[in-house]
Amino acid sequence: MSTPSHPAYLDNAASTALVGQARAAMEAAWARPGNSSSLHGSGRRARRILEEARESIARDLGARPSEVIFTSGGTEADNLALKGVYAARRRDDDRRRKIVISAVEHHAILDPAQWLVDEAGAELVVLPVDEIGVVDVDALRDLLAADADSVAVISVMWANNEVGTVQPVAEVARLGADHGIPVHSDAIAAAGHLSVDFAASGLAALSIAGHKFGGPQGIGALLLRRDVACTPLLHGGGHERDLRSGTQDVPAAAGMAAALRWSVENRDEHAARVVALRERLRDVLVDVGGVRVNGAVGRPDAADALPGIVHVSFEGCEGDSLLMLLDAKGVECSTGSACTAGVAAASHVLLAMGLDMATARGSLRFSLAHDNDDDDVTAVADAIGEVVNRARAAGLLSAGSRTGGRR
Amino acid sequence: MSTPSHPAYLDNAASTALVGQARAAMEAAWARPGNSSSLHGSGRRARRILEEARESIARDLGARPSEVIFTSGGTEADNLALKGVYAARRRDDDRRRKIVISAVEHHAILDPAQWLVDEAGAELVVLPVDEIGVVDVDALRDLLAADADSVAVISVMWANNEVGTVQPVAEVARLGADHGIPVHSDAIAAAGHLSVDFAASGLAALSIAGHKFGGPQGIGALLLRRDVACTPLLHGGGHERDLRSGTQDVPAAAGMAAALRWSVENRDEHAARVVALRERLRDVLVDVGGVRVNGAVGRPDAADALPGIVHVSFEGCEGDSLLMLLDAKGVECSTGSACTAGVAAASHVLLAMGLDMATARGSLRFSLAHDNDDDDVTAVADAIGEVVNRARAAGLLSAGSRTGGRR
Repeated sequence: MSTPSHPAYLDNAASTALVGQARAAMEAAWARPGNSSSLHGSGRRARRILEEARESIARDLGARPSEVIFTSGGTEADNLALKGVYAARRRDDDRRRKIVISAVEHHAILDPAQWLVDEAGAELVVLPVDEIGVVDVDALRDLLAADADSVAVISVMWANNEVGTVQPVAEVARLGADHGIPVHSDAIAAAGHLSVDFAASGLAALSIAGHKFGGPQGIGALLLRRDVACTPLLHGGGHERDLRSGTQDVPAAAGMAAALRWSVENRDEHAARVVALRERLRDVLVDVGGVRVNGAVGRPDAADALPGIVHVSFEGCEGDSLLMLLDAKGVECSTGSACTAGVAAASHVLLAMGLDMATARGSLRFSLAHDNDDDDVTAVADAIGEVVNRARAAGLLSAGSRTGGRR
Repeated sequence: MSTPSHPAYLDNAASTALVGQARAAMEAAWARPGNSSSLHGSGRRARRILEEARESIARDLGARPSEVIFTSGGTEADNLALKGVYAARRRDDDRRRKIVISAVEHHAILDPAQWLVDEAGAELVVLPVDEIGVVDVDALRDLLAADADSVAVISVMWANNEVGTVQPVAEVARLGADHGIPVHSDAIAAAGHLSVDFAASGLAALSIAGHKFGGPQGIGALLLRRDVACTPLLHGGGHERDLRSGTQDVPAAAGMAAALRWSVENRDEHAARVVALRERLRDVLVDVGGVRVNGAVGRPDAADALPGIVHVSFEGCEGDSLLMLLDAKGVECSTGSACTAGVAAASHVLLAMGLDMATARGSLRFSLAHDNDDDDVTAVADAIGEVVNRARAAGLLSAGSRTGGRR
């Protein structure tokens, strides 16, 4: 049952609950003080916890321990990958100014890319996506065939955080490799939920964030192949192979590793459970009428999608109104990425997929995790009809007043 | 009593134990999931915890809540202050290329400053210090009188992390203000241990780190006056007044705020206790013979020093040998900043204070906190004589073999 104090939390793509294993790992690390750079016993203990976390994460993501660079989260990992690899490539060859990304990247890629354009002489190439959000690999192939030497770095996410669509990352990585161009992937929505194998992917770099798979906030990692040059963003002390200075957050690293271990170990079971809930939730939402299911989950087979995301557009509604009305009924979801929630703009992801502005603005993302259950879906089923009716009524009113205003 | 599993931990300047109040605040925040950018109840709860932490930190440091920018730690805060203010100042006036710092800054200031020289056209001016490590304010005054218009930013730490010397920060801030130059202070070693009032200091910016005063690792803050322009290092989402993007680490922010609250509330009591221990520890160390006490603590009145630090040089010893021998006897200390521990180089702080290379290399930092007691000092007293004798014997041997090698 969902109540104001125990709502149906269907916004796990924004942040998951901390799993018990992560909590236990952090509390164990807290038992003694210690800076992982200190040489005495307490320091060595902290270092051991840190390196065991690094090894565990590497194992669970098909990487080598030395490829794991701890950061303060996904945004920092994305910034480091894009700015760091761009700077290193430009230093080697000043012609390499192009940054190639997909149209559906998270703001943690879009914004650093735009900053590099504004401040560091970069040129941005945005690859289009199809109607379910899959990046146009042919466009990338054509671009590289025409002028690969001007490309500094390519970044295409593993799976989209808003609509859940999985990208053909291995294909993108292969194209990059064919031309000697490092390819980064923001796997922040994917890690822990899908099988992610860094070595097998052929990628040069990959970002993860702890709090998207049951780990703590404030910790993430960039997986970075040893042969990929990258200039640091943070200087001072030379931690993390000189790529990311600052006292390492040992408890959080242990917590993230424990959460990832647990997520990977239970992935099949969780995915089966979550997909079953998602299918029921999708049916509940579609039953309202005037509903469009976005992304790969809208396809009959729902292939190549994150297990936990249902993203829908309600005809004649404002997403913000829906969100607040659902919240009042104890159902918590999102209008898109939490990172830009609060800004009343249509999602760039949906617009890139070809949705019109009104449809895009009438959208909600529901994101499930292993700790959701049938009651949470029932809470949506009980609330959604009335909520949509109200939002549509409000939408009609405001459309009327807007028309009035134009006279 | 100190044992291998419960050593005398005298390296609190590297990292403190997490205090109970911080732990409780983090565990309370973990009780529900939530991204502080989400609009629903759980998101608003997370945001409330975050903003209460911000208000509490602001209150305890004489700042306004809107001046508190959460970062992933002290190193990031220092990097943001130096690089961000430098970039903003250069953008306004291209002549402003000089970065003025003291000779005893932490590597989290030194290294970004050097990076700005190497990569961003900066010119570095290093202010000398006297024999106890106090920055030469007259040198700064002369510099500004001669050519203030070329200065982008000044950064002088509040108190030195190695020798504990407190800097005349208010005087530096006043000189900067007289010439319209923003002054930053790395108060990472000071906050929670000394009275730090941002508004009263006249500073433009000030860095703190949670794990130096009983809070968690992986969180810090830059206090930044609203009228000081600063370009961000991390882009994507626009968190923290657009100055530091990335999902905020709500539990860690709450933990840092709780630890700071507790530190400030108990500061006088802790300081009295810690100073008494420090005085006894200093006597214990001096009794060994051939010992020099560095910094302000070496002065009869020990004025203007952090309460918890005793920094000493042992004639004819290698600091690393002393550290490892003490560690074997259950006493944990440092040869200097943990961030560069492991690198067998003499401290730039000690060299700037005029120590010769051999003396500098024979140094140890002991750093006390509220949770140390007489037993910890006794552990040092019981071990130090034998340890120094051994290290001196080893030093003589290696000096002999070096002399032999020169023939």
